[in-house]
Amino acid sequence: MKTIYVALALSIASAAFSQKILERVEPAFWWKGMKNPELQLLVYGKDIANQEITLSDGIQIRDIRKVENPNYVFITLNTDEIKTSKFSVTIKKGKKNLASYIYELKQREPNSANRESFTSKDVMYLIMPDRFANGDVKNDSTPELTEKADRTLPNGRHGGDLKGIINNLDYIQNLGATAVWLTPVNEDNEKVYSYHGYAQTDLYKIDARYGTNDEYRTLSRELNKRNMKLVMDYVTNHWGVSHWMIKDLPTKDWIHWFKDGENGFKRSNYKTTTQFDTNASEIDKKYALDGWFDKTMPDINQKNSLVLKYLTQNAIWWIEYAELGGFRVDTYPYNDKEAMAKWAKAITDEYPKFNIVGETWLYTAGQISAWQKNSKTGEAAGYNSNLPSVMDFMLFADMPKALKEKESWNTGMIKLYDSFTSDFLYPDINNLLVFFENHDTERWNEIFNSDPKAYKIALTLISTVRGIPQIYYGSEIGMRGDKNKGGDADIRRDFPGGWKSDQQNAFNLSTQKTEQKEFFQFTQKLLNWRKGKEVIHTGKTKNYVPQDGVFTYFRYNEKESVMIAINNNEENQTLDVKRFEESLQGFSKGKEVISEKKWNLKDNITIPGKSSLIIELEK
Amino acid sequence: MKTIYVALALSIASAAFSQKILERVEPAFWWKGMKNPELQLLVYGKDIANQEITLSDGIQIRDIRKVENPNYVFITLNTDEIKTSKFSVTIKKGKKNLASYIYELKQREPNSANRESFTSKDVMYLIMPDRFANGDVKNDSTPELTEKADRTLPNGRHGGDLKGIINNLDYIQNLGATAVWLTPVNEDNEKVYSYHGYAQTDLYKIDARYGTNDEYRTLSRELNKRNMKLVMDYVTNHWGVSHWMIKDLPTKDWIHWFKDGENGFKRSNYKTTTQFDTNASEIDKKYALDGWFDKTMPDINQKNSLVLKYLTQNAIWWIEYAELGGFRVDTYPYNDKEAMAKWAKAITDEYPKFNIVGETWLYTAGQISAWQKNSKTGEAAGYNSNLPSVMDFMLFADMPKALKEKESWNTGMIKLYDSFTSDFLYPDINNLLVFFENHDTERWNEIFNSDPKAYKIALTLISTVRGIPQIYYGSEIGMRGDKNKGGDADIRRDFPGGWKSDQQNAFNLSTQKTEQKEFFQFTQKLLNWRKGKEVIHTGKTKNYVPQDGVFTYFRYNEKESVMIAINNNEENQTLDVKRFEESLQGFSKGKEVISEKKWNLKDNITIPGKSSLIIELEK
Repeated sequence: MKTIYVALALSIASAAFSQKILERVEPAFWWKGMKNPELQLLVYGKDIANQEITLSDGIQIRDIRKVENPNYVFITLNTDEIKTSKFSVTIKKGKKNLASYIYELKQREPNSANRESFTSKDVMYLIMPDRFANGDVKNDSTPELTEKADRTLPNGRHGGDLKGIINNLDYIQNLGATAVWLTPVNEDNEKVYSYHGYAQTDLYKIDARYGTNDEYRTLSRELNKRNMKLVMDYVTNHWGVSHWMIKDLPTKDWIHWFKDGENGFKRSNYKTTTQFDTNASEIDKKYALDGWFDKTMPDINQKNSLVLKYLTQNAIWWIEYAELGGFRVDTYPYNDKEAMAKWAKAITDEYPKFNIVGETWLYTAGQISAWQKNSKTGEAAGYNSNLPSVMDFMLFADMPKALKEKESWNTGMIKLYDSFTSDFLYPDINNLLVFFENHDTERWNEIFNSDPKAYKIALTLISTVRGIPQIYYGSEIGMRGDKNKGGDADIRRDFPGGWKSDQQNAFNLSTQKTEQKEFFQFTQKLLNWRKGKEVIHTGKTKNYVPQDGVFTYFRYNEKESVMIAINNNEENQTLDVKRFEESLQGFSKGKEVISEKKWNLKDNITIPGKSSLIIELEK
Repeated sequence: MKTIYVALALSIASAAFSQKILERVEPAFWWKGMKNPELQLLVYGKDIANQEITLSDGIQIRDIRKVENPNYVFITLNTDEIKTSKFSVTIKKGKKNLASYIYELKQREPNSANRESFTSKDVMYLIMPDRFANGDVKNDSTPELTEKADRTLPNGRHGGDLKGIINNLDYIQNLGATAVWLTPVNEDNEKVYSYHGYAQTDLYKIDARYGTNDEYRTLSRELNKRNMKLVMDYVTNHWGVSHWMIKDLPTKDWIHWFKDGENGFKRSNYKTTTQFDTNASEIDKKYALDGWFDKTMPDINQKNSLVLKYLTQNAIWWIEYAELGGFRVDTYPYNDKEAMAKWAKAITDEYPKFNIVGETWLYTAGQISAWQKNSKTGEAAGYNSNLPSVMDFMLFADMPKALKEKESWNTGMIKLYDSFTSDFLYPDINNLLVFFENHDTERWNEIFNSDPKAYKIALTLISTVRGIPQIYYGSEIGMRGDKNKGGDADIRRDFPGGWKSDQQNAFNLSTQKTEQKEFFQFTQKLLNWRKGKEVIHTGKTKNYVPQDGVFTYFRYNEKESVMIAINNNEENQTLDVKRFEESLQGFSKGKEVISEKKWNLKDNITIPGKSSLIIELEK
């Protein structure tokens, strides 16, 4: 780029606006020095495939792909060959410049490639941004986006936003969470029921009702300053039906289109177990993978290499731009699994420590583990996902059953224990997301009728077993929500205090209600204790088969050891410590983490009914 | 062996009887031409370790092992080096022959090494011999065995025997079974509750109340003549407390002995999931593997190489002697798994087609498959079992649940389907034993209140899915049994007609009751049809996700195709055949196996409530 800069810069806006010769270039900018120097620009404009496209500064187009729709051109560059930091993309007709775009190759942040990501050291706090806190009432509704805020509608937009989260980072940090997973915040311009964000209409743009791209990056930077991480909820499986590309499809096979469906729509059969079922019928696999997740969510065809490239670059763009600390990927097993293996590999090749957790909503360790990178179970299915992390939906399903059941030789705590006996199937057992609820499930405090005892047991479990604990906003103050009665809206209620008009503010510890405090203080104490505990983050585990309704396990490494006991009975139980000899050797006393009560390990341990003990052992 | 024959033959009986210088040599004889030429003789007699042992014919002892107990000596020979078919083992003191034993190396039956074994071509019929048929009342009680027959005792000996089985082979064959698994018939000389045979007191001798070794071989030969197979129930995990070796232990570590237990007894915790639980505590593993299965069943230490050799040779001895067609191995995951891998390898090295199915009583495919030879799940646990076949206890557990539940998106037939979606975890999916009950479980007809519809669905399933169907004596005539109320005795009731005094004889088809006939005739028709159906034995499977409570799947190969549909609703359902297009291509009609009704495949198929259809497709 030399002196033609300004002229070109001026030409773009006018051209795009008036004639739409050049409406979009995506990614809008990129970076120098990526490991993979290849960059594919999607250039979008009216009949653009029939125009000539040139680059300034002698930069060569390595490949140009035209597709069925002449409004798209895909240009591949080798960024290693580009010496300038800016250059122009010019659309020409003969000698006439119709439009230009100034493309920028930015400098990467130091250590960007080697960025840290969420690990088992972290606790992930899941937020639905629309329902958390309204930090900026000015963006509740915007002229260009269809659905306006209306807090009276359970399924409407309520006005929560990025500013609301930024305003409450002290609260989240203080609670003890170290990573924040937001459900999608990219633009979702569906007419109604858009607050969940899973029907995205622009993959490069934060929904204006949540804020701006810049604000999103600010949130990430604010988190990073606190040594915390922002985890993006990435959606590869479907886009919104109002996505600009869906409305003007580059290729017919950009999405899965059912001829006999209503506007191409056929619903998924949601049977993702077909992915590894060697005997699944083609039609079932087709409906599982190609059927739409919902009417407003056309199913994206990741097998199309242009689609896959688009998803890959978009993902990398957000990591680099917003300085992200991880991805949670929606509906992972609904995607084409071979394409997703390439997607995950491309990202982790670029950022070796970057963590990606897939929403592997399956109920057996055999199936879930098959989605984890380098698993033997995946190998049994002839598959390697390259996906570092998976969700332990088996534990999620077993936890409430175990706690609700009467104790017997094969019910209650034994079920919980059994959930862990398949750990050998996971090649990276520390990289499991462990949780007892999320934005799609009944709230734990609903299942257990606001019983703090049940909450404490559940939190103790996910905070002390292997993996990455994930909690869901509001449960730390005892929030309830009944999906069965109130639908999704009920498990996504507004956080009290997130709106100026709220009667009560639970973000402010001094105005928390007594019953909220019990939940909050336990959470805060446990999670803050967990922060520094390498023995919990990466220590080994020693399980003791539950006896008399008490499940005991130890987390240990060469330096430390922690004993965890969970009593599922209504009554006290006394543990004969002799049984734990192999784990207690070298220790003489212990201190319970929550109560700070001290124990002499020669004495048997009495554990109150429906409670847990976390005892740090001391020499 | 030359001329010293007769003199030695005379000397043995007298010596053994009077002075017990030489009580036993085990195995009592062996064969020439085994792949593994090594033979280890256990020589047992009073203070025998302090005598000299010599072999005739210049045969060399390759190794001699003396142990803590001087009544035992273990002698290793190389049978390839032995040219004679008989030789003598002589116990000497100085120049004096104290006792001798004529050891015979027999000729093997032709093709013995390459014998066929049970496969997915077979249907296995499980019999508890004491409860099936009393063919010889003279052996109901014998002087030398403690427990005498008493049919009035639910847990007593009832007098069923090998002769009773031999007498009813026409019945079994006619039913359509092709393999017979007997619960153990080796001597079990416990004082009471000995009929089940799992507390064996002599591993080389059929219990005299069942018959003789010769009679056992006769049964096997009679089966083989009918192209059927005898499957021995082999018990490696425990012996009876009255076993002669338990009463005079060769080594302290022959069994697992608990110092603080009652006569060494501590009960197993039965948590065999600890086998692959990378985090199991040592104490839990110890109780799971070393704890006794019951008070009368000392836990055998397979880690002891002499024990393992004894179990291996005994197993091979029975295969060769009784011309066996397979093993079912009791309580497989309770054994030392490394030792068992050696045991299974030694047997299958000797008989490459020999099938061994382990009682892998676990509930997840991830765990069960880890017990199958060459599984990736085993590999994940660093283990290769060498065990060819495992039991599908996951399907066993899911079947009644699925059939009992109301149909919904995640209950009923979908649960059954899901049970099959983990098939990818098994390296040899045809080598799974599939069953809906056995001698340790509630009887199916009890669970379903004698409803023939439920029975027919269950039998259809196990007879048409991948694997080896196993049925349990008596259910084919609708027998019930409630383990919860009547204990094991109730699920092991006498087969009507097995005793002369029985009021009714269900072995005789002409005297079967009407309600028995409905069960029997369905079973007979289905199993006999299955016999010749390669497409069922080894065909591929195509599953269709259950819709509206109907689970449909196809078995197919290059030549044939069979459609199976199971309707779990009370009401009729009509299947839109278009959905099965990929499986129906090339076929125009079909014939239902049981009703023999013909179908035009262009027409939709109506399936009555709570029933199954098995439709052979035709061009």
